[in-house]
Amino acid sequence: MAQEKQLVVGHKNPDTDAVVAAIAFSHFQNEMGMNTEPVAQGEPNKETKFVFDKFDYKYPRITTVADTDKVMLVDHNEDQQSFDNIHDVEVTYVIDHHRIANFNTNLPLYYRAEPLGCTSTILWKMYNEEKVEVPGNIAGLMASAIISDTLLLKSPTTTDEDKAALKSLSETAGIDYQSWGMEMLKAGTDLDDKSTQDLIDMDAKSFDMNGKSVRIAQVNTVDVDHTLEREADFVKDITNENSSNGYNLFVLLITNIMTSDTTGIIIGDDDAIATFESALNTKVSDNKAALPGVVSRKKQIVPPLNEKF
Amino acid sequence: MAQEKQLVVGHKNPDTDAVVAAIAFSHFQNEMGMNTEPVAQGEPNKETKFVFDKFDYKYPRITTVADTDKVMLVDHNEDQQSFDNIHDVEVTYVIDHHRIANFNTNLPLYYRAEPLGCTSTILWKMYNEEKVEVPGNIAGLMASAIISDTLLLKSPTTTDEDKAALKSLSETAGIDYQSWGMEMLKAGTDLDDKSTQDLIDMDAKSFDMNGKSVRIAQVNTVDVDHTLEREADFVKDITNENSSNGYNLFVLLITNIMTSDTTGIIIGDDDAIATFESALNTKVSDNKAALPGVVSRKKQIVPPLNEKF
Repeated sequence: MAQEKQLVVGHKNPDTDAVVAAIAFSHFQNEMGMNTEPVAQGEPNKETKFVFDKFDYKYPRITTVADTDKVMLVDHNEDQQSFDNIHDVEVTYVIDHHRIANFNTNLPLYYRAEPLGCTSTILWKMYNEEKVEVPGNIAGLMASAIISDTLLLKSPTTTDEDKAALKSLSETAGIDYQSWGMEMLKAGTDLDDKSTQDLIDMDAKSFDMNGKSVRIAQVNTVDVDHTLEREADFVKDITNENSSNGYNLFVLLITNIMTSDTTGIIIGDDDAIATFESALNTKVSDNKAALPGVVSRKKQIVPPLNEKF
Repeated sequence: MAQEKQLVVGHKNPDTDAVVAAIAFSHFQNEMGMNTEPVAQGEPNKETKFVFDKFDYKYPRITTVADTDKVMLVDHNEDQQSFDNIHDVEVTYVIDHHRIANFNTNLPLYYRAEPLGCTSTILWKMYNEEKVEVPGNIAGLMASAIISDTLLLKSPTTTDEDKAALKSLSETAGIDYQSWGMEMLKAGTDLDDKSTQDLIDMDAKSFDMNGKSVRIAQVNTVDVDHTLEREADFVKDITNENSSNGYNLFVLLITNIMTSDTTGIIIGDDDAIATFESALNTKVSDNKAALPGVVSRKKQIVPPLNEKF
């Protein structure tokens, strides 16, 4: 009997790991006898496009609405990052490396989260456990997802398992991950052809923190000063975003991936800004805050903010 | 350096699986180099006591408050079933076979849920995956937990993996699971020395269903008519519970584990009772409802109720 089809999807505003994990998990599940299709909730960002071009892999169908009754989530679990109609479908599998929040099911399900640097590392473990072969081009995508999420193993979220996965997948893909990693991170951080509005949308996530609506965007660069030449435009666009969407706080993280430091542009309600200052132990001056040593939104920004709100 | 100690705990109103899974996971984690202590959130029920006596295993320390900064949860995830101070501690691991609800973390964690009949089955898989030996007495406890949760493999929640786990663990423990299973289920369902108040507390769980407070208790028996000789006392005690605790609906499932049928005693607000009737496709008459074929609260009662509320 034919298996009922299920979609596999990563989060909204997809980054490389979100799309790659959907492809890698879908391939894995199909090898295990299921019938799945990977989809993406948006266009590829510049890095992701560069990665798909390199490994000559077709970008998946784009949709934010599930057209199957059952779905599998990768690289996210929170409702607001998922399909628009997530409450109308059954989630059967989740593979993720984030905190768990705003996620409820009626039925038992398969859920695998591990506090690793990248969802693709968990998927690499699953391929190994079930002795499923990783095809060369998918190995290239997964290695790139690990490079992307861990900033070439420099992010504090990086674990020994991420290192082992990147090494193994790079061998399977036939790439030198150091040189490929620098090449793809540079290509991904070339911001000049993007508008400031694009940049604050590109990798942005919304969080509900004790009733406050918090939006946190991140851009990676190799030249923060050059990015800040457009500071006035960022401030204008963020101020508009806040009033259009009712955000109490907008945090734009401009991260230098070479030095692992961040400069934040912080705009919002006075009390929310005060909460931010206290949570991150910094001072917001002229809309900006220095966040030395900060590279991970998930590990270094969200937990202290959540704690203080 | 000494590892920081973490508690491992199952849900409130512990049944055999809740306590056994805490012991089995704690042993596993200690073998993996961690420092954990299993605890139970209450006294053993009659079946659990019978099981611990049989395998000559000491019942764990009882506490409903975590006295470590980090904890691991087994056989549950919902806040209201967990430590009283669950919001003040960090959850590092969850191993469970239930739906996910009312569970939020600030940090990424290790979470493993599978839709199997018993948490101890998942733990048996983990022992195998990591090639950790299951000690004979713990194997006896785990086999008993599977017998308890699956009603000797007769519950509709039972999967092939539960069957394989029970067979393997019984061999390790040196028991015949058919005869031991009947013996422990009969011992566990001897209700005569319990008050009706005890019986409605024994295996009861609270659920928040779209703002309605729903309490669902279950007793297993081999003689429903005999149990219903105390119907008037059940009705009085449940009515008291509802007014003391503000429950909108109380459902007591009296399940015949031999025939796999249930008689429910249903007391609550008129609209909640109407919702129950519609969800379960039955009629509540004289506080009672026939629920033929129903043995699993988790799989056959909670999902349709949740859906209708």
